[in-house]
Amino acid sequence: MNSSQWFTEQVPSTGTAFSLKIIQKLHEEQSDFQHLEIFETETFGNLMTIDGCTMVSTKDNFFYHEMITHPALFLHPNPKRVWIIGGGDCGTLREVLKHSGVEHVVQIDIDERVTRLAEIYFPELCESNNDPRADLKFIDGIKWVKEAGANSVDIIIVDSTDPVGPAEGLFGENFYRDCVACLSEDGLLVQQSESALLHLKLIAEMRDAMKNSGFSHLQTLFFPQCIYPSGWWSATVASKTELSFRQDDCNNKSFDTVYYNTDIHHAAMAQPEFFKKAFAN
Amino acid sequence: MNSSQWFTEQVPSTGTAFSLKIIQKLHEEQSDFQHLEIFETETFGNLMTIDGCTMVSTKDNFFYHEMITHPALFLHPNPKRVWIIGGGDCGTLREVLKHSGVEHVVQIDIDERVTRLAEIYFPELCESNNDPRADLKFIDGIKWVKEAGANSVDIIIVDSTDPVGPAEGLFGENFYRDCVACLSEDGLLVQQSESALLHLKLIAEMRDAMKNSGFSHLQTLFFPQCIYPSGWWSATVASKTELSFRQDDCNNKSFDTVYYNTDIHHAAMAQPEFFKKAFAN
Repeated sequence: MNSSQWFTEQVPSTGTAFSLKIIQKLHEEQSDFQHLEIFETETFGNLMTIDGCTMVSTKDNFFYHEMITHPALFLHPNPKRVWIIGGGDCGTLREVLKHSGVEHVVQIDIDERVTRLAEIYFPELCESNNDPRADLKFIDGIKWVKEAGANSVDIIIVDSTDPVGPAEGLFGENFYRDCVACLSEDGLLVQQSESALLHLKLIAEMRDAMKNSGFSHLQTLFFPQCIYPSGWWSATVASKTELSFRQDDCNNKSFDTVYYNTDIHHAAMAQPEFFKKAFAN
Repeated sequence: MNSSQWFTEQVPSTGTAFSLKIIQKLHEEQSDFQHLEIFETETFGNLMTIDGCTMVSTKDNFFYHEMITHPALFLHPNPKRVWIIGGGDCGTLREVLKHSGVEHVVQIDIDERVTRLAEIYFPELCESNNDPRADLKFIDGIKWVKEAGANSVDIIIVDSTDPVGPAEGLFGENFYRDCVACLSEDGLLVQQSESALLHLKLIAEMRDAMKNSGFSHLQTLFFPQCIYPSGWWSATVASKTELSFRQDDCNNKSFDTVYYNTDIHHAAMAQPEFFKKAFAN
């Protein structure tokens, strides 16, 4: 492999690597928090990487952005207030704002440079950044949640990098306890939870931490995500009350999606046999 | 990337590559049909490649083998006679034979060496090869189907390599017409159909060829498959009559699976929004 023509993310811990053929590197910088690179690829449009890990590509980001958003929003009875922790590429923000009932969305990413680069290289993901309901903050999401008052948000979406570096604290009991405290009674947390094929131990630890923090109901969603390790990704929904899918609202949704629809909602909820056995209790 | 430590499959047409970290190459040969290699990987057990393409790994083959088999067998009212075209690693054969109602399975792979290597390096996939219901033939599957009589089989599973080289003829109208001719009235064909993210044109051509050949009902199934391009694979089920899922039988199945179950059956049938739009007619 001619490394000058491919971007490769090697993951030593899983023994896997994924590569995209690149035309050119468009940008590279060290922000205050992370190493950011933008590539023009041959078949996946633009690619942003953070600390050498694939984050978002033009071609396949719809899987992740739709699946971290719409299942959760249609599982909440009436979401008005949404926080996005991380999510600096603004693709999640765009999807959340497609829900007309949502009144206020705060995106809290510690690294403003991710958003500034997304505005240039992923303008379609940033098309709702000027929506009057959107509020972009570039501060520490953990601190934001810690300092929030009770019943101040309906849905918290944790759209973060892997649990190393800046995002590590987003996968721990202290953070989840703060989320429980500021969520409304019927509120929920949804968080990207890596690959069930490669990171089952991480999912188990995350679920334990969520339960220990006061979330009594957990559901894991499964969906494809080509550029992430294994190509098969997950998100975990945690809530204090049992959630019920607003299927009629989903059937009658007024916005377009590329992957998500009512059938895909149910499909994402289906638990593989090995997963059911791993979390039988 | 140190190429001596990784096996990499580059796919120039999709601009993607997938790699597994290897401990050693266990075997390499040129059979009469293909170039076969076996690697010991660090995290995925053994890996067989054919002409440089990943075919089967110890760790993740359960997705493919279960999903090319069980949905189709539970969609047929009473499958007794099954043919597997290709499938030389014998993993599909093993899954088919888990169904106690199946009376006779013929596996027709043109390359006997694939099976002989699977017996050595993937013994768990070959554990049912000596089942009295199993019949392993090493001949041309296209010719086999062409020469078969009417109503001679209930389910044809096409478990082949990509549509280049030996498998090319398995994706064309002539082959499908021969399948229609030898299938029972309520019979079905199920075939691996690549990635809906990367090969939508191939899926469209395949569906057209199936319809032109006399299959009136088509359904595409979606499932994860880490070692194949995009990590998201599909199979297409073609039949002459409308099929109905034997859900009670699936709920009460007497065998173990790693991925498949009733919920996963329904999940695999869910059509992503872009796929529904592409095949709305």
